[in-house]
Amino acid sequence: MLANNETGFILPVKDLAAKAKEKDIPFHTDAVCATAKVLYNFKDLGVDYLSFSSHKFGGLKGSGGILCRQGSMIKPMILGGPHEAEKRAGTENVVGIASTAFALEVSLHNLEKERVRQAILRENVKKGIKEIYPEVVFTESATQLPQTLNAWFVGLNGTLLLTNLDLVGVSASYGSACASGALEVSKVLKNLKLKIQEAQAALRISFGRSTSEEDGQEFLKRLQMVLGRME
Amino acid sequence: MLANNETGFILPVKDLAAKAKEKDIPFHTDAVCATAKVLYNFKDLGVDYLSFSSHKFGGLKGSGGILCRQGSMIKPMILGGPHEAEKRAGTENVVGIASTAFALEVSLHNLEKERVRQAILRENVKKGIKEIYPEVVFTESATQLPQTLNAWFVGLNGTLLLTNLDLVGVSASYGSACASGALEVSKVLKNLKLKIQEAQAALRISFGRSTSEEDGQEFLKRLQMVLGRME
Repeated sequence: MLANNETGFILPVKDLAAKAKEKDIPFHTDAVCATAKVLYNFKDLGVDYLSFSSHKFGGLKGSGGILCRQGSMIKPMILGGPHEAEKRAGTENVVGIASTAFALEVSLHNLEKERVRQAILRENVKKGIKEIYPEVVFTESATQLPQTLNAWFVGLNGTLLLTNLDLVGVSASYGSACASGALEVSKVLKNLKLKIQEAQAALRISFGRSTSEEDGQEFLKRLQMVLGRME
Repeated sequence: MLANNETGFILPVKDLAAKAKEKDIPFHTDAVCATAKVLYNFKDLGVDYLSFSSHKFGGLKGSGGILCRQGSMIKPMILGGPHEAEKRAGTENVVGIASTAFALEVSLHNLEKERVRQAILRENVKKGIKEIYPEVVFTESATQLPQTLNAWFVGLNGTLLLTNLDLVGVSASYGSACASGALEVSKVLKNLKLKIQEAQAALRISFGRSTSEEDGQEFLKRLQMVLGRME
């Protein structure tokens, strides 16, 4: 993964791809969370394949793409007509494809300025949470996407916290959240050597282009209310 | 197929499914061209699976569905998350799904009235073609969708005819047309025992909800112009 979906960690894909190349191992990177969030150069990464999902940067749900290094082999999964250079049969999702191009254009405009704005927003929310709940532990890295804040509310039940936040109109996630309602304990957090009860209480708070500084402050206000009730 | 895409023939799927059932053979029918054009009852057809494509009845390109008889087995092709009852992993194409529901609703409204209107339109266009080009042969069946008219312009080159029609703003198809620009000779027409040169000259003229009687007359006018040029 170029960036992890649960923690926002940016991973050393370029180094890993170079190591794979030494042994002639084809390398695919999941860039779903990184695309339109950090700038990357496909050729420079040295990977053979890179995939992205449009709805992660404002395109319509249900579309995405894969970049393939020239000369790389890719076998189609869906067979039939000769669409998309014989790589994916079936009438193309035209509206999805158009939405992808448009959303990419919008996202890449002022990307760096927006990254800095979200990093500041994230820091302010982090500081605010720490003030409200000093026992909180953040799972983070020095190379980190600004849009994700993974907070472990030590001593609290994560499902209960999420439910209570939902009741006051705050949308956050828990677990890997690859499907709504999934409540399995995150594999990612388990592999980061968190204990199961730690992973279970980890909340994922996400920021985006449309999240304002006021939204951050409003979140903190409602979090404080919810934590007061849960005591 | 419940209805053939090139000829519009409605095929005896119910009988075929019954024969398959006798021998315990699972039966899938491609209802892409029939859905929202003729009324069918999935249970009554006796098939195990039925698939349809949304853009064929006004939904967005890139979405569709499959009906499965209760108790039938279907193995997912795309693995990953538990979406769509664990039958197709990946974030759902929400806009495509919503467009499907809406387009179905619109298409089923006044379906029978619309079917009759298109059948009359088709007859008028057929009559008109026959007057302009008496050598024409129509590939048709007693059980026929009204939206398709397959016309073999005996003695003419089909590709040339199609190109000339395109030049005067008429969109028609040729061959199986499962991908734009495909110019292979239709397998369907070959299997109907047409000679290759016959299949090669067969033009597919399609009608829909938005095709008016005036459109039909305008098509005939332009066809006459094109045929005059080709002599």
